[in-house]
Amino acid sequence: MDSMRRHADPALIAQSTAVNAVNVADFEVLAERALDPSVFGYVAGGAGDEWTLRQNREAFDRWVLRPRVLVDVETVATAATVLDTEVSMPILVAPTAFHRLVHREGEGAVARAAGAAGTIFCHSTLSSVRPAELAAAAPQTARWFQLYWSTDRQFTRDLVQETAASGYGAVVLTVDLPLAGRRERDLRTAFAIPPALPLPNISAGLDRPVDTAAGLGAIVDKTLTWADLEWLRDTSPLPIVVKGVLTAEDAELACEHGADAVVVSNHGGRQLD
Amino acid sequence: MDSMRRHADPALIAQSTAVNAVNVADFEVLAERALDPSVFGYVAGGAGDEWTLRQNREAFDRWVLRPRVLVDVETVATAATVLDTEVSMPILVAPTAFHRLVHREGEGAVARAAGAAGTIFCHSTLSSVRPAELAAAAPQTARWFQLYWSTDRQFTRDLVQETAASGYGAVVLTVDLPLAGRRERDLRTAFAIPPALPLPNISAGLDRPVDTAAGLGAIVDKTLTWADLEWLRDTSPLPIVVKGVLTAEDAELACEHGADAVVVSNHGGRQLD
Amino acid sequence: MDSMRRHADPALIAQSTAVNAVNVADFEVLAERALDPSVFGYVAGGAGDEWTLRQNREAFDRWVLRPRVLVDVETVATAATVLDTEVSMPILVAPTAFHRLVHREGEGAVARAAGAAGTIFCHSTLSSVRPAELAAAAPQTARWFQLYWSTDRQFTRDLVQETAASGYGAVVLTVDLPLAGRRERDLRTAFAIPPALPLPNISAGLDRPVDTAAGLGAIVDKTLTWADLEWLRDTSPLPIVVKGVLTAEDAELACEHGADAVVVSNHGGRQLD
Amino acid sequence: MDSMRRHADPALIAQSTAVNAVNVADFEVLAERALDPSVFGYVAGGAGDEWTLRQNREAFDRWVLRPRVLVDVETVATAATVLDTEVSMPILVAPTAFHRLVHREGEGAVARAAGAAGTIFCHSTLSSVRPAELAAAAPQTARWFQLYWSTDRQFTRDLVQETAASGYGAVVLTVDLPLAGRRERDLRTAFAIPPALPLPNISAGLDRPVDTAAGLGAIVDKTLTWADLEWLRDTSPLPIVVKGVLTAEDAELACEHGADAVVVSNHGGRQLD
Repeated sequence: MDSMRRHADPALIAQSTAVNAVNVADFEVLAERALDPSVFGYVAGGAGDEWTLRQNREAFDRWVLRPRVLVDVETVATAATVLDTEVSMPILVAPTAFHRLVHREGEGAVARAAGAAGTIFCHSTLSSVRPAELAAAAPQTARWFQLYWSTDRQFTRDLVQETAASGYGAVVLTVDLPLAGRRERDLRTAFAIPPALPLPNISAGLDRPVDTAAGLGAIVDKTLTWADLEWLRDTSPLPIVVKGVLTAEDAELACEHGADAVVVSNHGGRQLD
Repeated sequence: MDSMRRHADPALIAQSTAVNAVNVADFEVLAERALDPSVFGYVAGGAGDEWTLRQNREAFDRWVLRPRVLVDVETVATAATVLDTEVSMPILVAPTAFHRLVHREGEGAVARAAGAAGTIFCHSTLSSVRPAELAAAAPQTARWFQLYWSTDRQFTRDLVQETAASGYGAVVLTVDLPLAGRRERDLRTAFAIPPALPLPNISAGLDRPVDTAAGLGAIVDKTLTWADLEWLRDTSPLPIVVKGVLTAEDAELACEHGADAVVVSNHGGRQLD
Repeated sequence: MDSMRRHADPALIAQSTAVNAVNVADFEVLAERALDPSVFGYVAGGAGDEWTLRQNREAFDRWVLRPRVLVDVETVATAATVLDTEVSMPILVAPTAFHRLVHREGEGAVARAAGAAGTIFCHSTLSSVRPAELAAAAPQTARWFQLYWSTDRQFTRDLVQETAASGYGAVVLTVDLPLAGRRERDLRTAFAIPPALPLPNISAGLDRPVDTAAGLGAIVDKTLTWADLEWLRDTSPLPIVVKGVLTAEDAELACEHGADAVVVSNHGGRQLD
Repeated sequence: MDSMRRHADPALIAQSTAVNAVNVADFEVLAERALDPSVFGYVAGGAGDEWTLRQNREAFDRWVLRPRVLVDVETVATAATVLDTEVSMPILVAPTAFHRLVHREGEGAVARAAGAAGTIFCHSTLSSVRPAELAAAAPQTARWFQLYWSTDRQFTRDLVQETAASGYGAVVLTVDLPLAGRRERDLRTAFAIPPALPLPNISAGLDRPVDTAAGLGAIVDKTLTWADLEWLRDTSPLPIVVKGVLTAEDAELACEHGADAVVVSNHGGRQLD
């Protein structure tokens, strides 16, 4: 585990944030100080020229609130219901890969934090724990499981069934990663997945050393179509969320082929620019 | 008063402005030199990312004059009448808090300056003087009183009646501060209201040490609605201005519930971003 | 003349431009090196925040050419006819003040250069030479005379008649300077018109030391209206150009009251921002 | 050839790119290090203020992809057919001048690289090799020949016939260079075509030392019109591409007068701004 330890100094992060962090951007600055540059670049960077990454941030500036006044605001609530689960706010923890790159407690700690905040943790295929393990580590947290669909269909079926048996609330199928992106920051820093990092949700045929983030493209079955979504619909006892839809046409197709919900997303600008 | 003295060096400001200040932006530079950083941040800063603050300034650049020529301009006038008061120009002195943070003479000096400029001074609830005191300090100045409405209704009634008895021309009810803003500059500088600063217009139940600007949120009654505006209308012998309206719907509601005027304002981008 | 000499080093300008100047912007850089800062600020600066000055430059970027191809371009011409005068290109030398601030040869040298380039030189009221003197200094150049209209009407009548008698082609009445602008660069540098600079086109009543560029506002009669344009029309044997029109309404009024042409201009952003 | 050698250090470029280049912009940085500044300025610079050059780059940012999901992408292809030639992608190698300024192997090496990439190399009139020589140097590459049309019509006819006889696929007539641009970078660096650089595709009457890039304007016949395109159509056994069309009207005229295709181009912002 020594190769992992250099990636983050949890004590340093804890100390820094307690002292200085006022907003989310501050945490990014603190993270950059605490992390190995190649890991920070993997977390913070986007694909290509990072044009999409910048546009994603600027898109928020185009939203303007229209405040109304003299309304009784003593009791206000941001609570919402998402696929029959009550959450404290309409913000979930999106699936992200490799939490143990930045902290040794990894996905379990983040899932417990999500539960403490009253919202759903979405567990990534690219994590260090199986669904059953995470359920044991964060039993009080509402959990969804994000699925990358390998070419080994039996492996996928087993994974989905373990998810359902572990008390998860939904399967989130990511469809906007047909190919891994050209992540120039990762190429410049020679970012690689450490060999010691377990990836138990990837089928045996793929469970080999992975040299770069782009190498992970191999875990995705490029031949998937809407018909496969129907197979998943029949296989999974859980609701299915299709993540990565960017057109109205595809949102309609997702509903027709069995999705219970869609997530509009460009993968955070991380894979296609 | 020693804790106050460090906040500003009036002699330095006076000397600097006499020498260098060519426009309003220059005064901001001079103020930054003369003031304690936390006080300067409180005066100059906005809420959140200060996006609204920047937009407020940029909005002025979208106004373009359309000059006409060969018109006799020997005698020109900017005078206007506002709620039956003649002013030398259509610009009033908006209510701002805690003038004694930046100069020991505080609201009295600013009110006299407003009078000398021929316009109205709007006296903030968050000042160091009661309406009767300010009337004595600046008797020649047309004055309005800005009201934050505490949960102690008798205290509010007394304050409004003292205002009317002190020769004020209007009550300005601020409605765009249902909650105090997250002012990140203040958090970074650990800005706090000095204990020595009197706040006589805040009801006894709230007149306790206040640690940050955000702590002042407690002075506002979050349950206020348009019905309360009608109560104020019946209580106040003075015209009522509702400040902080940003939608046409609310401007109509304000008129229906007793306002004599509204001020379109987002609180200078200081409280909501 | 020593007080003038420091303003410019003609030898330095000549040497520098011969070596390095590739475009118009280069001349500005060279001028900044060669001139006294207050003089450079007067020449290069605009009014107020210089927003209009910047917009004037950016406006050029909004013009896009639409090239056509395979057209015989062996013989091309930019020649044009302006108020019956043939010019080599549709660009005239606009009236600008105080040429002797930047070079001892002043308006005469610039007028000869304009003639050599085949275009019209517009001679400013705020120059160091009378119309008859400039005619003698640049007899081959087509000349117009720009008029600021003082309150001394007989002085204005004599000036216009000398202009006509000296072979000028038009009188250009500037109407966009009802008041001198607040030129902050000039205030910061304490720019002043040197006492040694002659201003023979300003009437005796105004021919006193002038401390700042803004002080020149006194030379303009603020009571001028379209009726006065008709008086000028009857007084001047030359065509009249009204300079400083920014609205279609005023362009129509100018024609109705005797103008032969108008110049759309905001005074280069130098006087109103 | 010593005067050529300083322009580029191929070994340095090879070593640098192998180590660091992640994207096209990186190659520009590496090229700037390896090349003589005047040569780099010639390659990278544009005309005038380089406004068009910048706009050309920014135009790419206005294109946004609209991704569709759950489509089988195991087999994807970018192949296309251009004037009956199969290419691996819809990107050709545009004609550019003087390859031997930056590498001693010049056009031959670039043509072989284009062939290896499966696309067409467009050979510039302003190259160091005749069509027959390039055909011998890169026989496997699909080639087009870009024509600047000199006033010596017999020379042009011979050049076109050699092109056809050498197995080229098209003649590309450049029509957006009626005059050479004012390239300010070249003026500042005193860029000049080295005397040792052969220019065998320029007619004898023009084959004299050329001092600057602008001096090359002499190679273009300014009197060309659409009628001359018809002459070329009758002279050339190859398809004709008209390069440099920017208006729909000219695209229609090109088709009417014998063009088989047009290239929409502003000459990369290199000649007109």
